[in-house]
Amino acid sequence: MEPLKIRLDVNGMFTEFVGNDGISLTDIDRLGGKIKAATQAMEQKRTKMAWRDLPHNQANIVRDILAYAAEMRPKIKALVVLGIGGSALGPIAVQQAIHSPFYNLNEKLRGDNPQLFVADNIDPTTIADLLDMVDLRETLFSVVSKSGSTSETMAQFMIIKDILERKLGRDAARQHIVCTTDAENGNLIKIAKEEGYKTFYIPSGVGGRFSQLCPVGLLPAAFCSIDIEKMLAGAAYMDELCQNEDIWQNPAYMYAILHYIAMKKGKNISVMMPYADSLKYISDWYAQLWAESLGKKYDDNGNVVNVGQTPVKALGVTDQHSQVQLYVEGPYDKVMVFVGVDGFARDVPIPKSFEDVPSLGFLGGHSLAALLLAEQAATEYALLKSGRMNMTITLPEVNEFTIGQILYMLEVATAYAGELLNIDAFDQPGVEEGKNATYAYFGRPGYKQKKAEMDAQPKKNPKYIV
Amino acid sequence: MEPLKIRLDVNGMFTEFVGNDGISLTDIDRLGGKIKAATQAMEQKRTKMAWRDLPHNQANIVRDILAYAAEMRPKIKALVVLGIGGSALGPIAVQQAIHSPFYNLNEKLRGDNPQLFVADNIDPTTIADLLDMVDLRETLFSVVSKSGSTSETMAQFMIIKDILERKLGRDAARQHIVCTTDAENGNLIKIAKEEGYKTFYIPSGVGGRFSQLCPVGLLPAAFCSIDIEKMLAGAAYMDELCQNEDIWQNPAYMYAILHYIAMKKGKNISVMMPYADSLKYISDWYAQLWAESLGKKYDDNGNVVNVGQTPVKALGVTDQHSQVQLYVEGPYDKVMVFVGVDGFARDVPIPKSFEDVPSLGFLGGHSLAALLLAEQAATEYALLKSGRMNMTITLPEVNEFTIGQILYMLEVATAYAGELLNIDAFDQPGVEEGKNATYAYFGRPGYKQKKAEMDAQPKKNPKYIV
Repeated sequence: MEPLKIRLDVNGMFTEFVGNDGISLTDIDRLGGKIKAATQAMEQKRTKMAWRDLPHNQANIVRDILAYAAEMRPKIKALVVLGIGGSALGPIAVQQAIHSPFYNLNEKLRGDNPQLFVADNIDPTTIADLLDMVDLRETLFSVVSKSGSTSETMAQFMIIKDILERKLGRDAARQHIVCTTDAENGNLIKIAKEEGYKTFYIPSGVGGRFSQLCPVGLLPAAFCSIDIEKMLAGAAYMDELCQNEDIWQNPAYMYAILHYIAMKKGKNISVMMPYADSLKYISDWYAQLWAESLGKKYDDNGNVVNVGQTPVKALGVTDQHSQVQLYVEGPYDKVMVFVGVDGFARDVPIPKSFEDVPSLGFLGGHSLAALLLAEQAATEYALLKSGRMNMTITLPEVNEFTIGQILYMLEVATAYAGELLNIDAFDQPGVEEGKNATYAYFGRPGYKQKKAEMDAQPKKNPKYIV
Repeated sequence: MEPLKIRLDVNGMFTEFVGNDGISLTDIDRLGGKIKAATQAMEQKRTKMAWRDLPHNQANIVRDILAYAAEMRPKIKALVVLGIGGSALGPIAVQQAIHSPFYNLNEKLRGDNPQLFVADNIDPTTIADLLDMVDLRETLFSVVSKSGSTSETMAQFMIIKDILERKLGRDAARQHIVCTTDAENGNLIKIAKEEGYKTFYIPSGVGGRFSQLCPVGLLPAAFCSIDIEKMLAGAAYMDELCQNEDIWQNPAYMYAILHYIAMKKGKNISVMMPYADSLKYISDWYAQLWAESLGKKYDDNGNVVNVGQTPVKALGVTDQHSQVQLYVEGPYDKVMVFVGVDGFARDVPIPKSFEDVPSLGFLGGHSLAALLLAEQAATEYALLKSGRMNMTITLPEVNEFTIGQILYMLEVATAYAGELLNIDAFDQPGVEEGKNATYAYFGRPGYKQKKAEMDAQPKKNPKYIV
């Protein structure tokens, strides 16, 4: 049987469909040399992109995760992930894709699975409410930080370790903490070894935003009975497609090339608009991947370039009533990416009623799925008609295999776009300034000079506070 | 006692703080005539902006809402809002601002209040799961559509009316439906009268995205024990401030003027980044308000202008690990709006531990609130240092009075920005094409020509489907 393949339809990017503002085959031909160089670079650098091998080299790790989940699941009612950025966005996206939005709320939908909470912020009210709500004796806290020095996650960890030890005793507390971190470097692995916490590893060469297919994403998914082997199989299948040097057969390369040309044509915004609640948080995950990877000051030759496309998250059909007015009539500054499905797990018929009321009668006899799909097609049509570049990724159905594909495709597309832009898609130097300023505010030793620099800022003008 | 006033700090928009890319007083002076004209227009058109009077003219309506909520609350465990766009975004934003994110999940946090669900999409899986979950006998469905012809909301209504009548009988079903719609026009008011549903009205001149302070927002808030009188009082207080002709004393005008100048300087993106989980959905609400109001093809003289700034939703501190790399290093194409608080309802101390580990020890003895506020200041500093325009709205605390203020301030700012841009901030002609295409796909009588037009599109090229 043919594997269930996701499709990337880029018709709406071309002049034939959107007129003058579109892309022509000549635009692509002109990039010939750049495309060849980027394609070669992807092959040559593959060994340095450890995340590319995650679909292939984790048989033992998957076994370990499944065994640990099987052992722990009967003991817990809630899994709380302490993580931020890539440690949170991937787990949330996959959980929402596979399970109902009412999973935490409804035991019937959840079955024997634990509730899943992802504590990806340090809002004190939220954390306090969460800790009041869960029963510590039946809760497992999963601490995720590659460096072991992520302030937000480590502050949460310090708080929770203290509470667990005070309430359950130090020995029992150990059974309620699992760490996912670097195998050798950083504080968290040291602490985990000293305390005897169960530990999983983030391979070196796998950065936060490329970590969903390593234990960062696999562990919480396994606890919620998401088939992680099937997700990795989907990614492995996509990896095959993404090795095709023919860009017309390689969805990731095509995605990147068309976005790159669009950027050169002034489209500094990348909107992702899924048409399914299950896919809503894929665009949150993508927003980090695309923004943090491609938003860079310097190119590989040290020139100041200040590149990057700003990701925007939308949701169909909901945001037709919020954002589509702007997309259709506003500036020609966007690439739209719809993410659709061929079918839904459940459908709801719309009964025939009010047949004499023109604006209601036509709805009866159809179903919500049919209405949603018609509205997606209609929005695509409206964008085409107003000359707006758009493309559509379609999942034949939403399951672990197709989710593995879309995640992996977008990761490869991001790396390939980095090559086309001639920037480093894997670092994030721009966040250092904010980290250092936080350290300085908190009086961390070694940051006096930074504090002095900050204090030397011009004083705020009270006239400018309205 | 002085009222608890929100503050708008715009220091970070000016050249003194962000260098060459900032705004100078000369930029504002040059706009003198335009500012004067816009200010006059706001005063002259005030009577046409019915939403401006909502803080002042609803004493009877508030009484009716509170009486109805008091009568119904003991009978229900869940309130399900059927609404999309402005009918959903305001209620969600206010609910999240006042109540815990775990409100639906935790009876202790909820007290005697009903669960609140806002069905703002037609994803069939979500709707089916929701209908399975709630007990119809203890659920009230609130149908919100001004025109009574919003396909999504009306399809939901048709489904739910049918189920309620089949399960509870037609008489009992009536007690489970409340409608908020136009007092005279449209199908919903007709149906409501025929069926005898309880009804609240959306005043004419109040469009969806400006409707949070009318029954659209007041009704669900009242059911969840949110103090709607205090929210209206906050809006009324802000209305006073927003009538000041001195732009340096008028936060809404200042907000609009600086954004307008920024747009003219090529900032086509408006990022709103609250630093509190409670304020997260204010940026969703704002995204509709700003996008749909200002994203326009034509100006008031009929010239094609294709204006509009694209709103981006971010959340502090979470998105420091997702978007801030791009904000600091990417293109100079954004205005950042932080929304912060002076304090939180609860705080969590970080215990002193790991004092010998430099990257952890400095955290101990502080609290999560202190860490969050330091990170907000640090991010602001990092943006200033990299020359990025930013401003900050600060709520002294999050309550109904301050939420009323920020909602009203942003509404007035949006209307004023519309005047500066010389466009109609209150229509949305760009969504018609998509609606008509949906009707055509569904074979609605009268849309054959549209269907023919759509069928005449160029055929998709299979080569472009990867």
